[in-house]
Amino acid sequence: MKNAFYAQSGGVTSVINATAAGLIQAARARGINVLAGKNGILGALNEELIDTSLESDAAIEGLKQTPGGAFGSCRHKMKSPGKSAPEFERLFEVFKAHDISCFFYNGGGDSQDTTNKVFQMSQMLGYPLTCIGIPKTVDNDLPITDNCPGFGSVAKYVAVSIREAAYDVMSMSKTSTKVFVMEVMGRHAGWIAAASGLAAEEVGDAPHIILLPEISFNEPAFLKRVDETVQQYGYCVVCVSEGLCDASGEFLINVASKDAFGHAQLGGVGPIIAEKIKQNLGYKYHWAVADYLQRSARHIASQTDLDQAYALGKAAIEHAVAGTNNVMLTIERAAGAEYAWQIGTAPLEAVANVERTMPAEYITDDGFHITQACRDYLLPLIQGEAYPTYKNGLPEFVQLRNELVKKKLEAFA
Amino acid sequence: MKNAFYAQSGGVTSVINATAAGLIQAARARGINVLAGKNGILGALNEELIDTSLESDAAIEGLKQTPGGAFGSCRHKMKSPGKSAPEFERLFEVFKAHDISCFFYNGGGDSQDTTNKVFQMSQMLGYPLTCIGIPKTVDNDLPITDNCPGFGSVAKYVAVSIREAAYDVMSMSKTSTKVFVMEVMGRHAGWIAAASGLAAEEVGDAPHIILLPEISFNEPAFLKRVDETVQQYGYCVVCVSEGLCDASGEFLINVASKDAFGHAQLGGVGPIIAEKIKQNLGYKYHWAVADYLQRSARHIASQTDLDQAYALGKAAIEHAVAGTNNVMLTIERAAGAEYAWQIGTAPLEAVANVERTMPAEYITDDGFHITQACRDYLLPLIQGEAYPTYKNGLPEFVQLRNELVKKKLEAFA
Repeated sequence: MKNAFYAQSGGVTSVINATAAGLIQAARARGINVLAGKNGILGALNEELIDTSLESDAAIEGLKQTPGGAFGSCRHKMKSPGKSAPEFERLFEVFKAHDISCFFYNGGGDSQDTTNKVFQMSQMLGYPLTCIGIPKTVDNDLPITDNCPGFGSVAKYVAVSIREAAYDVMSMSKTSTKVFVMEVMGRHAGWIAAASGLAAEEVGDAPHIILLPEISFNEPAFLKRVDETVQQYGYCVVCVSEGLCDASGEFLINVASKDAFGHAQLGGVGPIIAEKIKQNLGYKYHWAVADYLQRSARHIASQTDLDQAYALGKAAIEHAVAGTNNVMLTIERAAGAEYAWQIGTAPLEAVANVERTMPAEYITDDGFHITQACRDYLLPLIQGEAYPTYKNGLPEFVQLRNELVKKKLEAFA
Repeated sequence: MKNAFYAQSGGVTSVINATAAGLIQAARARGINVLAGKNGILGALNEELIDTSLESDAAIEGLKQTPGGAFGSCRHKMKSPGKSAPEFERLFEVFKAHDISCFFYNGGGDSQDTTNKVFQMSQMLGYPLTCIGIPKTVDNDLPITDNCPGFGSVAKYVAVSIREAAYDVMSMSKTSTKVFVMEVMGRHAGWIAAASGLAAEEVGDAPHIILLPEISFNEPAFLKRVDETVQQYGYCVVCVSEGLCDASGEFLINVASKDAFGHAQLGGVGPIIAEKIKQNLGYKYHWAVADYLQRSARHIASQTDLDQAYALGKAAIEHAVAGTNNVMLTIERAAGAEYAWQIGTAPLEAVANVERTMPAEYITDDGFHITQACRDYLLPLIQGEAYPTYKNGLPEFVQLRNELVKKKLEAFA
């Protein structure tokens, strides 16, 4: 192998840099230089290639405890090669100019689709290129892989945070706040909201109600359940997914602005739900919207999640060296009561643009909570606390030098 | 000393139970039984006294790592004894019936006022009662004491969270989110928002702008600064206090409902600020409202804060045994470069209902950040990570038995 290209794509996570660390460390051990795309695939298009060989070993090791995307990410939908392929052609010009024989793309469903198209283009052009997708998404919505790196840490953050807030609300409920609503991410898949349910270990534990995007919002049934919960336990804690829809499939809140993939930008269903409770039941509420805090919360990352993210980066190099091509790496869960996992592969065309939502057997019949089967699936993913080091009371994150290799081509129009 | 009464009042914190642990452990060592008010002062009024002697040593030790108020808190403004004193008279009936010779009240400014009134009433009635206020408030707005237990942990949470989120936004800013707004608590005092500024250690670090309740919101200047920051660094992170006011002193958002003290219930200035940026500058934004998550975040509590909260509980018993009366305990900061603290006392009448806001020398001239003097004050308070123990990936919190002692009086009308 000559040089390898690696880029981070889409929404970042608290452990995507651990994948980068695993990949770069494995590459260094084999004398392969990794050129990282500055701001994802845009780095390839604009020939802005970060020379990771200029980063110290300590800096690369430090990536394991640094949230965000150290090389910059992007939301950029590549124009399909079927219609007009100048973007894809440009990629190959850049790869050729910089002796790049391997393409590692670290992202979600859209990114796996891009990786698949890059592979197809390499075949069409007769340019030998190893294309390996590395999963990453807090939404946990990629198919085939047991779970997605980034999700386990958000799951842990959400379960820990809702338990903590519940202890607060419980204390205040006699004379003040009776209902607490926490909004979490999850556009179409309720995995993150579901993970809040792990905090409810005993009957009566919070969260008492989980509102998933997979289940149409039934306002009367919801309000009835809130009221019953307050009557029984004195307070009620609700976790709501940003992607909650009404019976017609419309998002309860749909901010006008759209991102580059055409997805609606969401946020704010938490206060909407809280206000419905106030208006109909009269209970005093508080609400929280964790937003980016949840997906960047490296301070409470899951050790299991971190281990998997790192291992996937390392495995990407090993697979490439072994000649694997046109796959996304996956986490495979071993059968049996004891949790065990290994890294597998899935054909890119099987994962591209497929969204995995919560299966019906993970949701209770009333639609308001998770089943034991769901708990069994989720619980291993939040095990272990991967604390970063601290200096002066704050976590020590690294910022790379991110120096670009010299350009060899004209600017891309 | 016979029996002691202890109650938790107002908004709870992630370390108020550590104060309870310190107090109960010190009391046990001296053979004093602590009767805790169920839901704060209401427990005394309703003769709902929790017999803490029935709690195991392990459970009391577990309080050190349990957020919220383990005995329940309340927002209840005692009717002033100057006008009509049935509530205060009732307190003394209950104290007398249960051989209570000491009143420990753990709360903020309103609670210190109540403690002061209880002391005055004891003098009027000739009932010997030791009255000691123990500070607690995430708002850090009590006078005389160097800082307030509960604040250091929120400060740490806010500084850590905004740094993490900033790494996320930085990665996304090329093609997506350019501005991130985090709303934090602080009704009239900007201490919590100020603490976010600790994350900015180098020029260009987030947060770039802090909006404090002490500084009237100057929209044109703010928007200009946001724009300049995005132009210079590619992104902008803002921390806004819930109590941000316009030039006329009105809250930017003022939810209609009021709490039992007549304070307006706030929340939602974060999205308002974010939308102003979008409308005027066109930048894509994300916003987060941490709400209760920040004040219950025991998983990232400051060790310094926890130590002080615990020590105050212990000192309350020691002071009562030594005959101290009519004081609030304080944290005193020693002079010198090395941070050191000890516990002192302040007369209750000097702290009751006095709100300490940010002094002018802690705020930069432009009103948008904190000074070095403010950093020097704040930084010691967030030192150390007081991690709770975990079981199955989740923090282990205790729930007490909270069994009431037998009532001896008629119900309070």
